[in-house]
Amino acid sequence: MFDLKRYLKAQRHLVDSALQNYLGIDDSKGSRLIRAMAYSLMAGGKRLRPVLCISAAETVGGERKDVIPLACALELIHTYSLIHDDLPAMDDDEKRRGQPTCHIQFDEATAILAGDALLTLAFEILAGAAGQSAPQGASRWLQCIAEIASAAGFRGMVEGQMQDLAFEGQTITKEALASLHGLKTGRMIEVSVFSGATIAGASPSQLECLNTYARHIGLAFQVADDILNVKGDPARLGKATGTDQLRGKNTYPSLMGLAASEAFATELVNQSLRALEPFDSRADPLRAIANYVIERKR
Amino acid sequence: MFDLKRYLKAQRHLVDSALQNYLGIDDSKGSRLIRAMAYSLMAGGKRLRPVLCISAAETVGGERKDVIPLACALELIHTYSLIHDDLPAMDDDEKRRGQPTCHIQFDEATAILAGDALLTLAFEILAGAAGQSAPQGASRWLQCIAEIASAAGFRGMVEGQMQDLAFEGQTITKEALASLHGLKTGRMIEVSVFSGATIAGASPSQLECLNTYARHIGLAFQVADDILNVKGDPARLGKATGTDQLRGKNTYPSLMGLAASEAFATELVNQSLRALEPFDSRADPLRAIANYVIERKR
Repeated sequence: MFDLKRYLKAQRHLVDSALQNYLGIDDSKGSRLIRAMAYSLMAGGKRLRPVLCISAAETVGGERKDVIPLACALELIHTYSLIHDDLPAMDDDEKRRGQPTCHIQFDEATAILAGDALLTLAFEILAGAAGQSAPQGASRWLQCIAEIASAAGFRGMVEGQMQDLAFEGQTITKEALASLHGLKTGRMIEVSVFSGATIAGASPSQLECLNTYARHIGLAFQVADDILNVKGDPARLGKATGTDQLRGKNTYPSLMGLAASEAFATELVNQSLRALEPFDSRADPLRAIANYVIERKR
Repeated sequence: MFDLKRYLKAQRHLVDSALQNYLGIDDSKGSRLIRAMAYSLMAGGKRLRPVLCISAAETVGGERKDVIPLACALELIHTYSLIHDDLPAMDDDEKRRGQPTCHIQFDEATAILAGDALLTLAFEILAGAAGQSAPQGASRWLQCIAEIASAAGFRGMVEGQMQDLAFEGQTITKEALASLHGLKTGRMIEVSVFSGATIAGASPSQLECLNTYARHIGLAFQVADDILNVKGDPARLGKATGTDQLRGKNTYPSLMGLAASEAFATELVNQSLRALEPFDSRADPLRAIANYVIERKR
């Protein structure tokens, strides 16, 4: 039986050390800007995107160490997006993972700039890693950098956040909600799997299966997040629950009810598992992550 | 006699068309996010960084078309930094170039996200251009992408903005002010020249001369900006003057007086011109830009 907890812990440790190195210092020292970046980056996130990236690489026979810079860049982009989403002008959240959000711990200007700097650092790391792999591996890396930027940008994550804010208080269809989540979180999850597998030399048919996997667990993760916001334990989640309803957010439970949402999440996970059938036991981490999506409590 | 006005107009036109293409639509259409991005991007900026990039490429015998994606990326990063700097939590500016700033014209959330999206698009364009030049040119491009990200990030522009905010109301030394400007605007101006010349295949000694040029005009530009904030014409500048003093900003006029600041700017321009001595008439645009820095009225 694959031990996901142990696997996740090992991957997290690997990614966290690499992230610390990229920031160049211990998080207690350095400029106020670096402290703010480190504060949010080291706040105990699940590292879902890095783990998906590394696991996808391993699934197709790649080596962990070759995709660490990629895994770190994905986490930097994720962290930047959380810092900016939490700002008063956006979701106005004061807590995340049980800790004060960046603009509460520091101040609003510092939080905006820390987000900007994390996003920029992601591309510095990607270009550096690509440069080291040149000339043979450079074109794969460049494809990944372009895909990551596209997934994170105005046709991806940023547009998703715009829609999320715009739709507050309006009732939208299930399809519109899926499209919003596809932009806001789905594309970055898909590109995490895609880029890890691409750097590891995946074939087009492998990439297709992995993309189907990623698309389904990306949405499953969001449905599960919505469910946790209704029935999760605030103490374990490290944040308040019931906030989506208060804010008039469209969620799966609000659109289709709690039971149907849970069934939908399960169906998505099953579809993601079917997409992994062509792979051997090296895909076990990806399989375990899919199951974890609906079993998690935080 | 080199006609700078005509040259700048031609370059601006080239860069503006390319930027419009990258956004994929006319600025009056598209999502609210794209409209906000286009609003700030097309607000009539001087396009100093793109022009420096193109002129540096031409100085060493490169072709304009090869560096257009680079020139556009530099302008996208510059525009993002202006949008974020103007936010209420930062400089809280309501006007730029005579028009409402992005968060006034749209709203704060949209302005933050438009900035994020412009920064991200810059790297999407750079990775795309690098991919097209692979495999031969890829390593030069990757070096430029890493340098641009470094110049824009937490050891460059973002840290410069942090310091600018932190030093408001405090009196600092002339050296600390030069260091702040080196981070906030200098490094991006230097990398504009560096990257244009690098893609065009500049030799190490050519890069060294061009870097000396860029370092001096970067600082000269900032000194001239400070001077304009004291004695410029608000109507021509498109923004209020005297704001630095009101806000307790450290400026060259406040630290060394107006006359000494003007002499300092002139000296910096002369040093930048000396660095161009090894180059032929293809460096005339760079020479004209240096002179323009201290002659400009806006």
